[in-house]
Amino acid sequence: MSDLDFDRYDRIRPIRWTGDALELLDQRKLPFEVTYVRCETSDAVAEAIAALTVRGAPAIGIAAAWGVVLAASTVDAADGASAAQALEPPIDRLNASRPTAVNLAWALARMRRVLGEAGADWREVIAREAEAISTEDLAANRRMGALGAALIEPGSGVLTHCNTGSLATAGFGTALGVIRAGVAQGRIEQVFAGETRPWLQGSRLTVWELEQDGIAPTLIADAAASHLMKSNKVQWVIVGADRICANGDTANKIGTYQLAIAARHHGVKFMVAAPSSTVDMATPSGDAIHIEERDPGELFGVGGVRTAAERVSAWNPVFDVTPHTLIDAIVTERGVIERPDETAMRAAFS
Amino acid sequence: MSDLDFDRYDRIRPIRWTGDALELLDQRKLPFEVTYVRCETSDAVAEAIAALTVRGAPAIGIAAAWGVVLAASTVDAADGASAAQALEPPIDRLNASRPTAVNLAWALARMRRVLGEAGADWREVIAREAEAISTEDLAANRRMGALGAALIEPGSGVLTHCNTGSLATAGFGTALGVIRAGVAQGRIEQVFAGETRPWLQGSRLTVWELEQDGIAPTLIADAAASHLMKSNKVQWVIVGADRICANGDTANKIGTYQLAIAARHHGVKFMVAAPSSTVDMATPSGDAIHIEERDPGELFGVGGVRTAAERVSAWNPVFDVTPHTLIDAIVTERGVIERPDETAMRAAFS
Repeated sequence: MSDLDFDRYDRIRPIRWTGDALELLDQRKLPFEVTYVRCETSDAVAEAIAALTVRGAPAIGIAAAWGVVLAASTVDAADGASAAQALEPPIDRLNASRPTAVNLAWALARMRRVLGEAGADWREVIAREAEAISTEDLAANRRMGALGAALIEPGSGVLTHCNTGSLATAGFGTALGVIRAGVAQGRIEQVFAGETRPWLQGSRLTVWELEQDGIAPTLIADAAASHLMKSNKVQWVIVGADRICANGDTANKIGTYQLAIAARHHGVKFMVAAPSSTVDMATPSGDAIHIEERDPGELFGVGGVRTAAERVSAWNPVFDVTPHTLIDAIVTERGVIERPDETAMRAAFS
Repeated sequence: MSDLDFDRYDRIRPIRWTGDALELLDQRKLPFEVTYVRCETSDAVAEAIAALTVRGAPAIGIAAAWGVVLAASTVDAADGASAAQALEPPIDRLNASRPTAVNLAWALARMRRVLGEAGADWREVIAREAEAISTEDLAANRRMGALGAALIEPGSGVLTHCNTGSLATAGFGTALGVIRAGVAQGRIEQVFAGETRPWLQGSRLTVWELEQDGIAPTLIADAAASHLMKSNKVQWVIVGADRICANGDTANKIGTYQLAIAARHHGVKFMVAAPSSTVDMATPSGDAIHIEERDPGELFGVGGVRTAAERVSAWNPVFDVTPHTLIDAIVTERGVIERPDETAMRAAFS
């Protein structure tokens, strides 16, 4: 399988660096408006991350890395070490823009490290590093796609959740990368996408993105997943990850855990596809993960239209944790870990 | 527990008979507008059922019974038998207005039976029968509420799905009747309601209805149910039913099956509360149930606001089947069936 076969299914780029600004495809306006938000400062990038203009763990990391480059333009420093000191406040603000995505902290730590080691050419060094984080992500996704697709029997149906595609990464996607590769290789015949309430990443982003690349998905309500599995139309659930713990426990979009339980109940296989930067060996298990909760108001309506009664309470956790015991395969660009547990994870990532 | 204690939590009536018309609380306009649609013909009632102006299996049956009374005003017949013949076409149209709810067929069969046996006073006979179907439903719900609540330990949290409340019945509700009774008896401390995509019966109806009666529920995304169960905040999932088969398999709103799988996974108990009219001993198991599918467009947006991309496919089953093996208790007004199976069901309903 050459990259040429994948190119056909990989036309969307959510993050563009212009040389002096970062342009982010405004994902709040998709699928109806394809517009890029121009960020000229690191604080503008932090705000865009917090506001979900850019979303998806890998994409957030890439955007934050470019945010550091933007912050650098306001700093006068003779070498990387003193630049690093001056850049601490904007880097901290970038780091605080979303609490769960480990790639954010990972990308910023990587930027800090090269900065600390850089000399007088520290500006070029960090610009190259941000570029490298982006191109490595795209290459990792294509590698992951090939590895993940190889697990799937020809003629399969798959179900995905949230958006883990080109829009969530530098391009190609993680779970959607596996699906793109599986379609390119003729292994996947039917793709189902859960709408992913409350933010509807599935219906707003995933089905749009797959349609752009000529893959026709079928949208379902999140609550219809088990009924779908019972019909034997899906052989794999394929999802991304916001954080993978040292034992394989995986934090991902709310609803992922429910799909994993349903998949196991029906004998459907469950795959997590994410770059190795998502793996956090410092977090022993899912119990140690802080789950972000967002505005309950996200459950009171859709697209500005209120649907719930006034004065209602809601609970709106954004992520959940899927225990490793419910995961059949974790796919990163480094390889496939089947039946992940602490031993297998340590062997692969220590 | 006297009826007085329940009265406090039972103030909503979705169906009102005026003597010459049926007024239906327009559930498509809730929670923002409380208006009744006036139906003066049986066809108007059939259209209201098809359009979801009135919904909920018991409420549909009650509305259809009154529809027969409305049809009678256009018929000139000397006795019940000849009236029955003249009323076959409108009864057939009422019967075809929704495919899954067994109460609809049950209520119409009951109307047909009394009509066939009636003499010259057939008009009064069927009006009394429609009234009886309604008052028996309310009494059944209160009985069911007391029976179901007795299963719940004090201090419990519960999760419900869709709307099975006053709005779905003559009053009090089935699953929400159990919840009302549990709250009245101090057994239930916290009520969670899934929003129930795509039609959002949970966020539009259930939380509104419970708020009206002074019960403050917490709304969650359907996909958050497993994460909630993991937190030990719910001890029971309590749902209604559109049809209960001879072996206990239960057809109910899409997503119910997924909740049952998740409940079993977490050791959370699962209760179905429905009037005995929902039990269909002629259907041996869930495999024999035709699952209604509605317009895929219901998944493309909310409240007239489109959220999904254009040219997208969707699959929109409205119901699913929960196998009896995942049900801890079926509660009807006749009693509680724990761990339902064919033997237990036959003992109770044959």
